[in-house]
Amino acid sequence: MTTQHPRHMYRETKRIKEVNGMPSQSVHSLITQTPEEGFALAVMLAQKGVTVTQPSEEVRKVLRPAYSTNPDSLINVSQVIAVHFQTVAAANNYWRQWTPYYQ
Amino acid sequence: MTTQHPRHMYRETKRIKEVNGMPSQSVHSLITQTPEEGFALAVMLAQKGVTVTQPSEEVRKVLRPAYSTNPDSLINVSQVIAVHFQTVAAANNYWRQWTPYYQ
Amino acid sequence: MTTQHPRHMYRETKRIKEVNGMPSQSVHSLITQTPEEGFALAVMLAQKGVTVTQPSEEVRKVLRPAYSTNPDSLINVSQVIAVHFQTVAAANNYWRQWTPYYQ
Amino acid sequence: MTTQHPRHMYRETKRIKEVNGMPSQSVHSLITQTPEEGFALAVMLAQKGVTVTQPSEEVRKVLRPAYSTNPDSLINVSQVIAVHFQTVAAANNYWRQWTPYYQ
Amino acid sequence: MTTQHPRHMYRETKRIKEVNGMPSQSVHSLITQTPEEGFALAVMLAQKGVTVTQPSEEVRKVLRPAYSTNPDSLINVSQVIAVHFQTVAAANNYWRQWTPYYQ
Amino acid sequence: MTTQHPRHMYRETKRIKEVNGMPSQSVHSLITQTPEEGFALAVMLAQKGVTVTQPSEEVRKVLRPAYSTNPDSLINVSQVIAVHFQTVAAANNYWRQWTPYYQ
Repeated sequence: MTTQHPRHMYRETKRIKEVNGMPSQSVHSLITQTPEEGFALAVMLAQKGVTVTQPSEEVRKVLRPAYSTNPDSLINVSQVIAVHFQTVAAANNYWRQWTPYYQ
Repeated sequence: MTTQHPRHMYRETKRIKEVNGMPSQSVHSLITQTPEEGFALAVMLAQKGVTVTQPSEEVRKVLRPAYSTNPDSLINVSQVIAVHFQTVAAANNYWRQWTPYYQ
Repeated sequence: MTTQHPRHMYRETKRIKEVNGMPSQSVHSLITQTPEEGFALAVMLAQKGVTVTQPSEEVRKVLRPAYSTNPDSLINVSQVIAVHFQTVAAANNYWRQWTPYYQ
Repeated sequence: MTTQHPRHMYRETKRIKEVNGMPSQSVHSLITQTPEEGFALAVMLAQKGVTVTQPSEEVRKVLRPAYSTNPDSLINVSQVIAVHFQTVAAANNYWRQWTPYYQ
Repeated sequence: MTTQHPRHMYRETKRIKEVNGMPSQSVHSLITQTPEEGFALAVMLAQKGVTVTQPSEEVRKVLRPAYSTNPDSLINVSQVIAVHFQTVAAANNYWRQWTPYYQ
Repeated sequence: MTTQHPRHMYRETKRIKEVNGMPSQSVHSLITQTPEEGFALAVMLAQKGVTVTQPSEEVRKVLRPAYSTNPDSLINVSQVIAVHFQTVAAANNYWRQWTPYYQ
């Protein structure tokens, strides 16, 4: 059994995944088919926020060992991902099959 | 007395719990049956945000004593969990039995 | 004069308070009868976020004097509580007696 | 000209202000008559988050000079207030006279 | 072409701008006519959060050179503004001319 | 195939992009045609939050090397962008082609 969205959503989602498969770090849509893909998008958005401030891939590579072995940096990265995941999850109506019951 | 969601929600939830029981840290759904399970999911998401940046389990094990005995690190971890719990709680319509009264 | 929720809410709330009165730090519901109780729940959730990362009560007791006399740690704890209070307040429809007027 | 809420809101608000005027730092309602009062409530909630972790007024008095002359601490306090103000503002429907136009 | 809100919103907005033009740092309304004014209001709210904790203008003047030349302090100030801007933007229905299409 | 909004949204969006193309860092609208443009707007808003506190372009240029090579500063910048992106995404109804299904 797979997640069931209205058919037009599937078409859209498919188109977007193809586009998102591009190597560039461009964000083409916030719609993903699963929470797992949504989390991956949140990670990409967090990285993108770093890239715009430090565009040099060379410099970022030099910095990487510093923050990837610093627990506090890792926790802060996780925090940025959490904020973006909130946005992506809302965009996807939380990948819900059901809708909250409103009277 | 147990929490009562529409029947189709139960089916969905059950399916998800089985899938979520898998050892991998994949997020298959934001729907949980109780707030307690929702909190556990938020914890998992916070960890996942660290794992994507530092995939080496070995390195993470080395770092663990440092942050788990540092009060400020612990508070920051709690902050990341809080942001994810906000997302999970919204996804589950706050596990409400009742709906806010709209005129 | 007391807060007036639909009767089925009261029943639910009462059940939950009894359950929440249990010594364990489990979260059984986000519904509380008053903002004051909602704030207490937010405090509990912030502590719970620390507990899952550092389960040893002994270690946490050792750390306590450090952060409880460090103003920056106290401010950060207050921040985590604020995020959880946002979630709890939304879950309770802000404990509103009235509903925003929508045309 | 004053802000115009439905009459039953005024009554509620009035009752709450009286209660909130009590010296204790209990939060009796998130409803305030103006944004200015809402901001004051957010400040109180931020302080309350500190008080629950460090209940000793004596200790807090000792810490006060340290954080009130540290720009980074002041900015962080302002951050906590901002999160609480978001909650209070939402609870009060942003003190709007008008409602967003939904088709 | 200017932004078009229902006429009663204009009247309200105009009244508020006059009031907000007052030298005191009181917040009289979250409604602004443009995003630019909304951002200015968010900046004022962030400053107000500092002012309530350190009311002495003299002390704040002494601290200013320290944080205004510290990149991390500047980033944190920007964070507080971002949270307040979120509140102000929501209050103004994001200054939208159109409404999201709901089926 | 391009994103399809109701026609009046296009007109509005076009007008705004022209205005936003101006060199000044004024925010004229939160509406953008794509998530990519929305992210760029979020970056601009984060920078604007710094500029209001440190208006001297000269000073900011001096500070730039410090934070653009400090991983923790870069992560914090990314966090500010994430909060603004949340606002911009909500303003644009997440650039959705479809609407969440409400019963």
